Amino acid sequence: ESRLPGFATHQVGVAGAVVDESNGKVLVVQDRNKTKNAWKFPGGLSDPGENIGATAVREVFEETGVRSEFRSLLSIRQQHDLPGAFGASDLYIVCRLGPLSYDIDFCTHECSRCEWLQLAELAETANTTPVTSRVARLLLRGLERGFGDIDLPLEELRAVYSGAFYQLYQRQLER
Amino acid sequence: ESRLPGFATHQVGVAGAVVDESNGKVLVVQDRNKTKNAWKFPGGLSDPGENIGATAVREVFEETGVRSEFRSLLSIRQQHDLPGAFGASDLYIVCRLGPLSYDIDFCTHECSRCEWLQLAELAETANTTPVTSRVARLLLRGLERGFGDIDLPLEELRAVYSGAFYQLYQRQLER
Repeated sequence: ESRLPGFATHQVGVAGAVVDESNGKVLVVQDRNKTKNAWKFPGGLSDPGENIGATAVREVFEETGVRSEFRSLLSIRQQHDLPGAFGASDLYIVCRLGPLSYDIDFCTHECSRCEWLQLAELAETANTTPVTSRVARLLLRGLERGFGDIDLPLEELRAVYSGAFYQLYQRQLER
Repeated sequence: ESRLPGFATHQVGVAGAVVDESNGKVLVVQDRNKTKNAWKFPGGLSDPGENIGATAVREVFEETGVRSEFRSLLSIRQQHDLPGAFGASDLYIVCRLGPLSYDIDFCTHECSRCEWLQLAELAETANTTPVTSRVARLLLRGLERGFGDIDLPLEELRAVYSGAFYQLYQRQLER
């Protein structure tokens, strides 16, 4: 896509919103090292070569002990000059995950609290971040009317030249 | 989102699909240095600190001479081990743009052809890439039934701690 040689300019963080459709709850944590007691989705930085969905699943498990599987991509935030990013820009991607286990065993190094919270409560509370609040409202709408309106599902494709697989996330619509 | 210090692992490429809603055409190019004569959307790598939409508008202008404005984010591809990326992973984001001018004056260093092509033709032709083809079908559906079903619009928000603005792209749905 460019005549310039590539160079890495962005770190990629991925959060996982694990939604239990049976009871309308979502898995949230509070960071240990932040002053404000804000609920947020567990997540963290992608390792080199790691797929977006794999980062979400791994980080959710490391922080909360809950096993999950990738369902869709929901939201992308771009931020520059983030403290601690050493000049890199930051892409923060929120995925929807489905739970494979439910028992919480959270990492006390990273989190001070971890709970299955009602999505409706997360969508209303002031104790959260603007992005988490917006994603919660989106997920609530998904619970009520189906996730088809909010999901960017994954399609895996084979690259024309290298033959390697890549991941495409976009709206899936029947004609 | 992580206890680890940040480091850049990804390059971010952005393509712009400039759609002329008055006649159902979209602006496409053929790369000069690729063997296959594949139509694709103009685009290129983000400069450090540059917003996604700004990259799309800049690259479209540099390659085609057409001025445009950002409308929405449509599609995200993740690819690892891309030739020429020097070990960085690659995120390739496709945006929908609206035209502000129509005369083509394309960059002959980068492109061998540049045209306003019918979206219906781009959606059907074999002379394109898998991602371009999928985005073309998505845009065709948008032309027919409204872009509300396919768009991830931009919302600009202020960061809680730093006060800096950041950009959030996600589905916008009335309750």
